[in-house]
Amino acid sequence: MDLRTLYKVSYGVYIVSSVKDNKFNGQIANTVFQVTSEPPTIAICINKQNLTHQYIESSKIFTISILSTDATMQFIGKFGFKSGRDIDKFKDTKYKIGKTSAPVVLDYTIGYLEAELTGSMDAGTHTIFFGRIVDAETINNQEPMTYAYYHEIKKGKSPKTAPTYIASNGRAKEIKSEVIKMSKYRCTVCDYIYDPAQGDPDSGVQPGTAFESLPDDWVCPVCGADKTQFVKEE
Amino acid sequence: MDLRTLYKVSYGVYIVSSVKDNKFNGQIANTVFQVTSEPPTIAICINKQNLTHQYIESSKIFTISILSTDATMQFIGKFGFKSGRDIDKFKDTKYKIGKTSAPVVLDYTIGYLEAELTGSMDAGTHTIFFGRIVDAETINNQEPMTYAYYHEIKKGKSPKTAPTYIASNGRAKEIKSEVIKMSKYRCTVCDYIYDPAQGDPDSGVQPGTAFESLPDDWVCPVCGADKTQFVKEE
Repeated sequence: MDLRTLYKVSYGVYIVSSVKDNKFNGQIANTVFQVTSEPPTIAICINKQNLTHQYIESSKIFTISILSTDATMQFIGKFGFKSGRDIDKFKDTKYKIGKTSAPVVLDYTIGYLEAELTGSMDAGTHTIFFGRIVDAETINNQEPMTYAYYHEIKKGKSPKTAPTYIASNGRAKEIKSEVIKMSKYRCTVCDYIYDPAQGDPDSGVQPGTAFESLPDDWVCPVCGADKTQFVKEE
Repeated sequence: MDLRTLYKVSYGVYIVSSVKDNKFNGQIANTVFQVTSEPPTIAICINKQNLTHQYIESSKIFTISILSTDATMQFIGKFGFKSGRDIDKFKDTKYKIGKTSAPVVLDYTIGYLEAELTGSMDAGTHTIFFGRIVDAETINNQEPMTYAYYHEIKKGKSPKTAPTYIASNGRAKEIKSEVIKMSKYRCTVCDYIYDPAQGDPDSGVQPGTAFESLPDDWVCPVCGADKTQFVKEE
């Protein structure tokens, strides 16, 4: 049994947002799917521990922003690896208040959906929320980001059950000999791997830059942890 | 409200198969997603009218074949637009009997999952089936087909609510002037559009071939309907 086969299942990358007591929150989600066309109904799968889960249960409304391949790791990190309990994710984020009165994130968004909760289902660690679509708009025709793109092109975090996932892709062949001598470093907060062969182009760090040469104010592009939170990969 | 925004949601293309009284059936599905990682659980969304729905309810097992971008329109048509009530879809299909004793389709398959039913949920026209994964194998590293690829590259059937979807993509620009004078024809069975600018390469029909010039034994690449089932698009 090779559970890595599950990585061949295709998903998109979305921000699901909601509201509670005039506070906004949003988070990255991958499991978004249409259930029926009449009435148009959408389902999302949200971890019970997440603040957004609490907000959706309370306000019974949610919005879905469909992200483009342009979304940066920093942006995905803010919505995917930080909690709205610690930071206001909507500060420095472009958004609008939707018809439902929930916020709609507009940064790197090619289109969005707004929904009113019609039901939910317990799925162990997650809840599947069902919502009737009350608004939907396409903003532009850029390419939607897929989870595969996030992993393979953006070098996003691999699930812990698949430590070899990133290493197995074709880009490994591009690593030059001098770079091979440089060590990779892993973020202990979010498991992001800093790979000298890739650098961190979103932050202006060229491929071929050793971890030791990164500026002191460099932070993990995914979760924002500083350099002291990184450990050398053996 | 622009419900075409729903087409920006990313899905894969799969064949879900099951068994009942030693008879096999399978069908194309798009909604396949992982629900929890421990125990590994997968969910699928299946129309209640489909024979595969009946088989899964009866045998409580199902398999999922993850299709590659190589899958032909004929193959997708056999599993997506024909009913196992009328034909034996497993005749001329490469498959094996899985651990669950349900068939696993192997044609154009990059990996597969096998599952034992653990629950289901009524979603109106569809049922969401939940299954514990009991086997999973990756066959090769070809690209998984996405629904977007099926629509845009393979020119697969657009939902009826989106008649302009195909016409709006970038390939329209490639249409040569002489081809513009040729009419498109629509299959009344499955809504496939024969576009002379595209031809039907899977059946050896070159781009630039008028519908009127297609051989009499040419059939709809999606559902197998013959030429008399086509009407000119206005």
